[in-house]
Amino acid sequence: MNKILVIGAGRSASSLIKYLLDKSEKEDLQVRVADISIENAQKLIGNHTNGKAILLDIFDEKARKDEIKNSDIVISMLPARFHMKVVKDCLKFGKNLVTASYISEELKELDKEVKAKGLVFMNEIGLDPGIDHMSAMQVIDRIKDKGGKMILFESFTGGLVAPESDDNLWNYKFTWNPRNVVVAGQGGVAKFIQEGRYKYIPYQKLFRRTEFLEIEDYGRFEALANRDSLKYREIYGLNDILTLYRGTIRKVGFSRAWNVFVQLGMTDDSYVMEGSENMSYRDFTNSFLSYNPYDSVELKFRHCLKIDHDDIIWDKLLELDLFSADKKVGLKDATPAQILQKILMDSWTLEEDDKDMIVMYHKFGYELDGKKKQIESNMVVIGDDQTYTAMAKTVGLPVAIATLKILKGEIKTPGVQLPITKEVYEPILKELEDYGINFKEKEVEYLGYNPFNLGA
Amino acid sequence: MNKILVIGAGRSASSLIKYLLDKSEKEDLQVRVADISIENAQKLIGNHTNGKAILLDIFDEKARKDEIKNSDIVISMLPARFHMKVVKDCLKFGKNLVTASYISEELKELDKEVKAKGLVFMNEIGLDPGIDHMSAMQVIDRIKDKGGKMILFESFTGGLVAPESDDNLWNYKFTWNPRNVVVAGQGGVAKFIQEGRYKYIPYQKLFRRTEFLEIEDYGRFEALANRDSLKYREIYGLNDILTLYRGTIRKVGFSRAWNVFVQLGMTDDSYVMEGSENMSYRDFTNSFLSYNPYDSVELKFRHCLKIDHDDIIWDKLLELDLFSADKKVGLKDATPAQILQKILMDSWTLEEDDKDMIVMYHKFGYELDGKKKQIESNMVVIGDDQTYTAMAKTVGLPVAIATLKILKGEIKTPGVQLPITKEVYEPILKELEDYGINFKEKEVEYLGYNPFNLGA
Repeated sequence: MNKILVIGAGRSASSLIKYLLDKSEKEDLQVRVADISIENAQKLIGNHTNGKAILLDIFDEKARKDEIKNSDIVISMLPARFHMKVVKDCLKFGKNLVTASYISEELKELDKEVKAKGLVFMNEIGLDPGIDHMSAMQVIDRIKDKGGKMILFESFTGGLVAPESDDNLWNYKFTWNPRNVVVAGQGGVAKFIQEGRYKYIPYQKLFRRTEFLEIEDYGRFEALANRDSLKYREIYGLNDILTLYRGTIRKVGFSRAWNVFVQLGMTDDSYVMEGSENMSYRDFTNSFLSYNPYDSVELKFRHCLKIDHDDIIWDKLLELDLFSADKKVGLKDATPAQILQKILMDSWTLEEDDKDMIVMYHKFGYELDGKKKQIESNMVVIGDDQTYTAMAKTVGLPVAIATLKILKGEIKTPGVQLPITKEVYEPILKELEDYGINFKEKEVEYLGYNPFNLGA
Repeated sequence: MNKILVIGAGRSASSLIKYLLDKSEKEDLQVRVADISIENAQKLIGNHTNGKAILLDIFDEKARKDEIKNSDIVISMLPARFHMKVVKDCLKFGKNLVTASYISEELKELDKEVKAKGLVFMNEIGLDPGIDHMSAMQVIDRIKDKGGKMILFESFTGGLVAPESDDNLWNYKFTWNPRNVVVAGQGGVAKFIQEGRYKYIPYQKLFRRTEFLEIEDYGRFEALANRDSLKYREIYGLNDILTLYRGTIRKVGFSRAWNVFVQLGMTDDSYVMEGSENMSYRDFTNSFLSYNPYDSVELKFRHCLKIDHDDIIWDKLLELDLFSADKKVGLKDATPAQILQKILMDSWTLEEDDKDMIVMYHKFGYELDGKKKQIESNMVVIGDDQTYTAMAKTVGLPVAIATLKILKGEIKTPGVQLPITKEVYEPILKELEDYGINFKEKEVEYLGYNPFNLGA
């Protein structure tokens, strides 16, 4: 029996483990799921005879090394900062490794050693990073193979609520780590290139510089720029490309309303507010407004942010009870971001029957035989339920498929890898289609941002 | 002869050194001025027989220790981050020390040792910090001595251009380190308390939350909040105060226009712009605006920031040549803040005959015998020329006066000190009056922010 060790049985591991257990009979697998909580591991395995739940604290050197030594291949679904312990053991004991996380500088430096040992360390093979890499490279390689020259690449991903569960004014619920949503965009300036011009958007303008996307059957979405689009020039081999832009998808109107929190300073995670525990939501809101005993918090808020009384933003804010004097924060020594997260979780937590949705959208502009052309492709995945969410499927299934293919020697190029070569993306994208994860592609007229070639 | 060692002969040392040399005959002083540039030191000493210029690299351990050992008292006018080397030598060789910088955590920890050796390490005795401490504590102590209870303290300082040299639309020129002006407000949220309510202003709103000040003969000014006003509760013994606010003074309209740079991201010092060296000022500006080959940079700018064609902000921007396609940045691998600084220095550098001006304004609200009262006081100092600037006078003279008084044993309380006790502020404020540095004080009606005691 081939022993697959899955370390970390969090929310993103459900579909991954199900896939492996479903294949375990035919492929002769034992799926060993190790987690700091044995219940987490047990829950995802159920009563499957080929699954085994293991209590593992990854800081317990001996236990960790023993488990890794005893396995045929390792999947690390740990938070990214904990990967290196597993990486080093895999290198030592000669085990292949799969993760859905970005390749760190520290990991990149091990490439030579990994290659020398003939090992495959496959990373960035979840959703984003993961399916975005594979689906983009498939089209880019096809264009290049035909002799085309890439001139534009834009790519957008969003974790959203499914249309059937979309019942609040923000058209948004937390389908993943709420904290990441609250502090999104704060890591540094958003950089990209459009028609050969470098563009920079600071945090305070990020949510006002959206662009629109249309997806058949799903309507209109908006996208806001990710932090560093420019690094994808090197990764995707697009060094001379004129336009390169990556972004995050929301339903239309989300960003304009979210900008209110940004402008007031409610998303700040860098300091603790005085007396946060006993604050009402109204007190919290009032902390960011001028002192004035005569005017209401509501009017001060509207005036500060220039919100008209009939602006839908106002209804969105009321929906969150942002002005409630009764609801209490109840968090000691909390930052504004932590308090905002708490307020949002009252309204944006998924109900038991709610489903999530993943949307991905690519635009490829290229020149072929002197003509400019454009391909657009999109993927929409809806979750089955609150365990087998769209997020868990799109993150976990590529990891699981890759793991089995590495185990069987079908993916074998050694080194610290990401899924940008045909050997990897062709079979994985093909198999993902069996699970309803597929792209709709169409040729459209090339538009770009400067169709008539005017000087800007 | 008493040897006074002045380390650092930068712009803020001129008036300090002049004061000491002027007193040197009568007080039997030798003023030893040590700098990494012997020319700097020489220039400030001139031909004075009691002055001596010394070439000193403070990283040269032996030379530094020899100079300090050989002196009777030390003044460090080095950038704050270099003080500790001098501090440790002074402690070792038993020399008193004076600086105009904030007391660092590292320095604070030495308080016991300094006391044990009976030494005076006087800090924060320049302008801000310095004259602000002294002039505030003088009034606060007087109010408390009369049995009054402090309920409000607001304090504002600004380094500006003198009215006779105020000839641009911004009513501003760089009279001090331009870099500090460009990145001002970025260190963290502005915190203060008003009528018992904590208030927080994030960077993106800082320049839109100004308040006004009137100063007789000088007209109207505006003030924006400093980073952390709350720490002054402890320093000034104002623990139960309802309103505590410290701010920076500008001429009216400056902040509203400056906010344009903040919103666009032009003040960001955290990343390097691609191709900065060959950019025109217009390219720089365009980097922060949406790509569009049809619209002018001007119209995109106005639209993005909602600036009407007849708004004075527009004229201010044109005055800076922000849209010039001819003027080049010429700085390699520069951050937005560095480029903006370069653009501003074209327009805001003092001409040879220009003079600077320091403005300080305090408001003290208190209750005495059941009545609410208010005292306001202000100081305006104008520079003599480009050497003996208002900044050099207000920073350097308190340092110089304190040094002489410590040397003569008139200020003698040992420890790591700041000038908040009568022993220190009374004689120094009195002597500063001889140099035209004095406060105009008046009783006004108490206003506060909630005169009718309404609930907010």
